[in-house]
Amino acid sequence: MAKQLFLHINRFIKINEKDFREMLSFFELHTFDKKDIIMNPGNRCNNNFFVLEGCVHMYFTNDNGIDRTVQFAIENWWITDNLAYYKKSITNFGIQAVEPTQILSLSHSKQEQLLAKFPSLEKYFRIVYQISYGSSIMKTKYLYEFSKEDIYFHFTSHYPWFAQRVPQYLIASFLGLTPEYVSEIKNKKRS
Amino acid sequence: MAKQLFLHINRFIKINEKDFREMLSFFELHTFDKKDIIMNPGNRCNNNFFVLEGCVHMYFTNDNGIDRTVQFAIENWWITDNLAYYKKSITNFGIQAVEPTQILSLSHSKQEQLLAKFPSLEKYFRIVYQISYGSSIMKTKYLYEFSKEDIYFHFTSHYPWFAQRVPQYLIASFLGLTPEYVSEIKNKKRS
Repeated sequence: MAKQLFLHINRFIKINEKDFREMLSFFELHTFDKKDIIMNPGNRCNNNFFVLEGCVHMYFTNDNGIDRTVQFAIENWWITDNLAYYKKSITNFGIQAVEPTQILSLSHSKQEQLLAKFPSLEKYFRIVYQISYGSSIMKTKYLYEFSKEDIYFHFTSHYPWFAQRVPQYLIASFLGLTPEYVSEIKNKKRS
Repeated sequence: MAKQLFLHINRFIKINEKDFREMLSFFELHTFDKKDIIMNPGNRCNNNFFVLEGCVHMYFTNDNGIDRTVQFAIENWWITDNLAYYKKSITNFGIQAVEPTQILSLSHSKQEQLLAKFPSLEKYFRIVYQISYGSSIMKTKYLYEFSKEDIYFHFTSHYPWFAQRVPQYLIASFLGLTPEYVSEIKNKKRS
């Protein structure tokens, strides 16, 4: 069970199966159906989530009542509102399952206990956050590098497996576009 | 010397002055004039930078030869292309001083030695990256939340001390706007 997390941790630091079984006791396993809400905006952000299977997105709702996706997580990705998780404060973001999803959740207090018991995991999380942070800056570069017209086609041609997997309106939202605009440029390209 | 870094580390973990003096021996101190290049795009990304004094920005140059700012760092911020730093690969980003700046640089190999010698610093860097990553996602929210017209005024009214300190064209670039567009909306607001 949760073999993926064992393998993921072992990409960055070395842990044995016995220690891993003890580490796992700090986590909770949850299963969600497609469209289920995993984290509610307006609540205290108490959990960090590791995706074992499936796909989720993190979003906020703008003043016009429209959800905007800021991040996806598939297998082997961690996801939460990290500022709110760190501060144990209210989050403005929601997390929702895009597919049937299985996750491990780690509460803030359990994370503190886990890291006190296994300080070597600090290195694991340091690297996970370093890579996530670096990727997030690369996404900013991406958003600034391409025109509105180009970004959708550039993204879907570079990540075709992801574009197959996730609904078009969520990819549009993630790229800062409206679904209507994506339909328009796809029609234009066809004609 | 470098008292800021000592105080910054002690916000998150406890270290004493004797250990800190030894930690400091892994860093190099550099001083830059306004507009000096600190990291060159196209080179291997070997260093992570802690700003002691001044302000820098990280940018890339788009296909039209225009520099786009993706990040700033002022006192007590770390800055580098974290994906390239982690992978020891070529970076597409440059880092330039916006003001006369004093930084501490930590090379990739020195960071490994430092963390091997002082593993408690893993927790420090884990928290630094966690907060940086969380802030980067909040910036995405910001970019998606406001219209092109609103984002400049929202940013400068929320961070007036920063808007005072940094040239307008760099703030425009950081917010995904052209300097001409900012002049236009400022004129429109005045009239």
